Amino acid sequence: MISFANDYTAGAHPDVLQRLIETNAEALSGYGTDTYSAAAKEKIRAACGCPGADVYFLVGGTQTNQVVIGSLLDDCEGVIAARTGHISVREAGAIEYTGHKVIALRSKDGKLSAETVKEYLTGYYADGGHGHMVYPGVVYISYPTEYGTLYSKKELTELCSVCKEYSLPLYIDGARLGYGLESPECDITLPELAGLCDAFYIGGTKVGALCGEAVVFTGAKAPRHFVTKIKQHGALLAKGRLLGVQFDALFTDGLYMKISRHAIDMAMRLKEILAERGYRFYVDSPTNQQFVILGDEEIERLRGWVDFSIWERYDGSHAIVRFATSWATTEADIAKLRRVMEE
Amino acid sequence: MISFANDYTAGAHPDVLQRLIETNAEALSGYGTDTYSAAAKEKIRAACGCPGADVYFLVGGTQTNQVVIGSLLDDCEGVIAARTGHISVREAGAIEYTGHKVIALRSKDGKLSAETVKEYLTGYYADGGHGHMVYPGVVYISYPTEYGTLYSKKELTELCSVCKEYSLPLYIDGARLGYGLESPECDITLPELAGLCDAFYIGGTKVGALCGEAVVFTGAKAPRHFVTKIKQHGALLAKGRLLGVQFDALFTDGLYMKISRHAIDMAMRLKEILAERGYRFYVDSPTNQQFVILGDEEIERLRGWVDFSIWERYDGSHAIVRFATSWATTEADIAKLRRVMEE
Amino acid sequence: MISFANDYTAGAHPDVLQRLIETNAEALSGYGTDTYSAAAKEKIRAACGCPGADVYFLVGGTQTNQVVIGSLLDDCEGVIAARTGHISVREAGAIEYTGHKVIALRSKDGKLSAETVKEYLTGYYADGGHGHMVYPGVVYISYPTEYGTLYSKKELTELCSVCKEYSLPLYIDGARLGYGLESPECDITLPELAGLCDAFYIGGTKVGALCGEAVVFTGAKAPRHFVTKIKQHGALLAKGRLLGVQFDALFTDGLYMKISRHAIDMAMRLKEILAERGYRFYVDSPTNQQFVILGDEEIERLRGWVDFSIWERYDGSHAIVRFATSWATTEADIAKLRRVMEE
Amino acid sequence: MISFANDYTAGAHPDVLQRLIETNAEALSGYGTDTYSAAAKEKIRAACGCPGADVYFLVGGTQTNQVVIGSLLDDCEGVIAARTGHISVREAGAIEYTGHKVIALRSKDGKLSAETVKEYLTGYYADGGHGHMVYPGVVYISYPTEYGTLYSKKELTELCSVCKEYSLPLYIDGARLGYGLESPECDITLPELAGLCDAFYIGGTKVGALCGEAVVFTGAKAPRHFVTKIKQHGALLAKGRLLGVQFDALFTDGLYMKISRHAIDMAMRLKEILAERGYRFYVDSPTNQQFVILGDEEIERLRGWVDFSIWERYDGSHAIVRFATSWATTEADIAKLRRVMEE
Repeated sequence: MISFANDYTAGAHPDVLQRLIETNAEALSGYGTDTYSAAAKEKIRAACGCPGADVYFLVGGTQTNQVVIGSLLDDCEGVIAARTGHISVREAGAIEYTGHKVIALRSKDGKLSAETVKEYLTGYYADGGHGHMVYPGVVYISYPTEYGTLYSKKELTELCSVCKEYSLPLYIDGARLGYGLESPECDITLPELAGLCDAFYIGGTKVGALCGEAVVFTGAKAPRHFVTKIKQHGALLAKGRLLGVQFDALFTDGLYMKISRHAIDMAMRLKEILAERGYRFYVDSPTNQQFVILGDEEIERLRGWVDFSIWERYDGSHAIVRFATSWATTEADIAKLRRVMEE
Repeated sequence: MISFANDYTAGAHPDVLQRLIETNAEALSGYGTDTYSAAAKEKIRAACGCPGADVYFLVGGTQTNQVVIGSLLDDCEGVIAARTGHISVREAGAIEYTGHKVIALRSKDGKLSAETVKEYLTGYYADGGHGHMVYPGVVYISYPTEYGTLYSKKELTELCSVCKEYSLPLYIDGARLGYGLESPECDITLPELAGLCDAFYIGGTKVGALCGEAVVFTGAKAPRHFVTKIKQHGALLAKGRLLGVQFDALFTDGLYMKISRHAIDMAMRLKEILAERGYRFYVDSPTNQQFVILGDEEIERLRGWVDFSIWERYDGSHAIVRFATSWATTEADIAKLRRVMEE
Repeated sequence: MISFANDYTAGAHPDVLQRLIETNAEALSGYGTDTYSAAAKEKIRAACGCPGADVYFLVGGTQTNQVVIGSLLDDCEGVIAARTGHISVREAGAIEYTGHKVIALRSKDGKLSAETVKEYLTGYYADGGHGHMVYPGVVYISYPTEYGTLYSKKELTELCSVCKEYSLPLYIDGARLGYGLESPECDITLPELAGLCDAFYIGGTKVGALCGEAVVFTGAKAPRHFVTKIKQHGALLAKGRLLGVQFDALFTDGLYMKISRHAIDMAMRLKEILAERGYRFYVDSPTNQQFVILGDEEIERLRGWVDFSIWERYDGSHAIVRFATSWATTEADIAKLRRVMEE
Repeated sequence: MISFANDYTAGAHPDVLQRLIETNAEALSGYGTDTYSAAAKEKIRAACGCPGADVYFLVGGTQTNQVVIGSLLDDCEGVIAARTGHISVREAGAIEYTGHKVIALRSKDGKLSAETVKEYLTGYYADGGHGHMVYPGVVYISYPTEYGTLYSKKELTELCSVCKEYSLPLYIDGARLGYGLESPECDITLPELAGLCDAFYIGGTKVGALCGEAVVFTGAKAPRHFVTKIKQHGALLAKGRLLGVQFDALFTDGLYMKISRHAIDMAMRLKEILAERGYRFYVDSPTNQQFVILGDEEIERLRGWVDFSIWERYDGSHAIVRFATSWATTEADIAKLRRVMEE
């Protein structure tokens, strides 16, 4: 069976795995103080054009969002996010577990507009009752969004500008960052993106690593005692090398971007096939996740041949279905899918 | 100046104060184990028709919501509430501070419909992704709502029924309970309301007490170690008598309802005056809070004569304004307001 | 029966109650913004010799400790306290509930020495592993302590000095502050005490009020958004006047100190009686709480005549028993106790 | 340089790594629902003699303690632990971060005795004040302890018995479980240990894996919604295979025990060398960690040749130093160490 279920069905990209194998026997210091972690951080700083940035490695996306957002917020502050944002919906209340409200605002195709944020903030500070309301403390967006869509450079710049006006850090969840940056519709570079936010993470788990996310505090310092906060969340690996070595591999010879480009190439051909088949797209995604609305019968028919994800129910007889590509998607997979579709 | 700013501008109802004075010198045991607390609990059980109910006294409304909801929820559960609910908006994130999400659903005139809750729960359990989403653990409503509106017996029965279907406790915030029960539009009795929910509180602060709310766990037991949980929240008074004596007074000779009825009488006359003046009501409230949409000039003009609350901005030149009555509102206040309005 | 059970068996001191009665009908603004709260704060600033201090009113002691300590600590910091401190033992984990560790150090007669704190801090910063240990963020002491003992000015100065050396705020729990300041052994004034710490609270509940504690941030500002943090803990009273009026009364014409002095006078005579009876003191307390070790038979005999508290078991046949005085203790009570003891 | 710094300096045991390589390309379902995770769980159940046990994989030890203990405790409960326990000291307050107190009791050589626990519980329930104290909710011990020592079967049985008497779950931190079970002094089998506790974890990170710990809820079910709680802590891996495959390898053909035995063999020879050199042992450890008290000069001398850990200061001129072995320790390392020592 061909799998388009998600971008974490396969293990690590072979080059990443190779580095783990090569370095396995070396005796390295623990908790992220090893030389590979140091080298990886340096390469990431260079790639982001942020020579002074603090970089840390965490294990997964929800964990990263929890630790970073929790550390950036004061006790009575909350984080502004799109109503469809990962932290708003799919993280089992990880942000609330740290005591903070997710201030969920309306969004379109997964995107939060500068206008919506501005309107909320204006209302918040106009309304005399704000002493009894959670203070906004951080703005969270995903790039690409949970629906595979992208903010344009203009949109990001506007968001950045509203955040600056209200002295709110802008934090970008880049669980699938590479798939955004290598999308044909992307009009921004990694350094430009880094320059428009206060913190973001470069997703490894879904872009070729076994696990791991790299948090970048652009330009400024990480929150005080950040390593201790990571530890306090149970998020500090004794064998921190596992993350350091993988990110060192991902940021050597542009591997991260190569993996992303390959997945995007595959995704564009996948999208073409889905379009040719006449499927209705739930949203027009230029990245590695494609969402289509399928009838229950069609879903049943496909199930025998292809692995995909049921995203959510659309109506009584349809569901939104997700197809995703990754480093592991092959030309052969695409060819097989085409055959299944043409039947 | 006449004050309609809110229902907590004056101190305690004279009869409540009188009981505090009379009992002041008595040596009573601490932390709510005194005889007045015991007597008050017994009277509340009788008034609610719940002879087996666990009753506890807390100091304020936000505190009560925080302690009760936090105690009813398992770690990864959240509380369903109207988007305009007090816990969703005006409690500075007190629920999130205890680690739980407020699952805010759309509402109309402050009310959450059984249909909306049912639709959410159906979607939640249909969607395969619910293991990554906060589990719904309690349903919260306010009676009356934050906009002074009331649920009908039918609406409450329907909500109760959805909650039972999904084994979710229904918890009612009765910060202004008396003003609901004594409203001309109320079609439910206190025992009936108690019978339709799993826990609720009888608001004292806004209905004649200096402070204090009485939580009733109808029929069932309070959460395990509930007194310790109250203590853990810093909510246990050493001089628990302060709450016991007041609630004993409020539930002697129907004082709680008398206070409520008086405020409702005043409110209905207030409403009439506002209507005669031609004000546009933001919502049609049958209780002690009246919301009207006033232009900024009118607000300026009134300010010199009457004290009221700016609830929130309505648009660029109007605001939603709240007028409220309480035990302290007098016929003379109403007469003065009429004169101000007739000018 | 005569009661020496504790210092919260009676209601408010008559002068405090009188002020509540006199002001009851006034229409005052809510949430602590009333004129009595403002006046009381001003009087407290004057009494403390801290004209620039931020002063806030909270309802009870555990709540005050929870809100203040929680607000002063960064996420991965804990509070240093005596192993017998109220926050270490008797507050149902209120500090931990806010996510912070109580770093409990050894103590003697309820007191934490500068030497012990210094030794801990030296060890902490010497040990390379501190990144995996909770950072010390605040030092907490009680004055008087939970065993009625007092720090001398020298001891407080030394503690203050260690705290300054490590940039740690020193916070004093003054639940029974007046009983300390009016003790014959006290060698410090209120302004001196205020000058040696960063924050402290003046206990009302146990010194003549129905409820209420006044937090003083000496010299410096309160933590950011402090009112919102109070609200977030469910600790903000709608009728904030209840606290403002009481503290206004307590700090008018030296009432707070008069109440304290009376209780101390009674306590010193109580102590004399207990000593004459030949009881063994568990600790030598110069304040309003006296702890003696009594055999179970003696406890049984006394129970019929006097109300006191069993503090904790001492051994198989003895318990530590507490006798306390307050504003409500009378000469007649003392005389009766003497008779009971002489039998 | 030879490394005895800790048991996580090298990567994965070659056989574990081999399995990761072999399975890397397979498309597997996410979040721990893959076939390798299922197989590993089955093998663990068999090895523990608990056919009905719920088994879950987590990433690291602090995380595991946090998620498991937090899930087992009610809101106002705390966890009893040795004062030297990992959760008491070295986890940056991870337990407190979830709102729970660590009730730290005195210990000897890292061990908590049944007698100490019993004494605490007797005092707790005898003392009338327990409603204001954190309820004990779980007992935590480490096997081996943080000082490498072991509980005997008799000691574990006694602890188990006290826990049962007070209906408290006994939870064992097995970060280095294998090194305990394969110690020459161990008098208990894995199934016996499983039978004496309610939950424990089998440490992978320090026994041959890159990361990963396996939690076993022996006989009973895991806490409700446990996967969602894992997610809520940010502890659920998208590529759950990383843990499943490694534990599948570790529990195939007794690899986990083989790795442990090898490290123990090396540790016993290491211990012999340290003894011959005349070093004073801080504690007599029969497992893979050896603690000796070294003078600062000796530490300086050794540093050039061997990598070890400074555990904590012993006095002004000595420190407690840790030497550890693992799967990666070789005969050659031991031989080199002997030569260094003989110089």
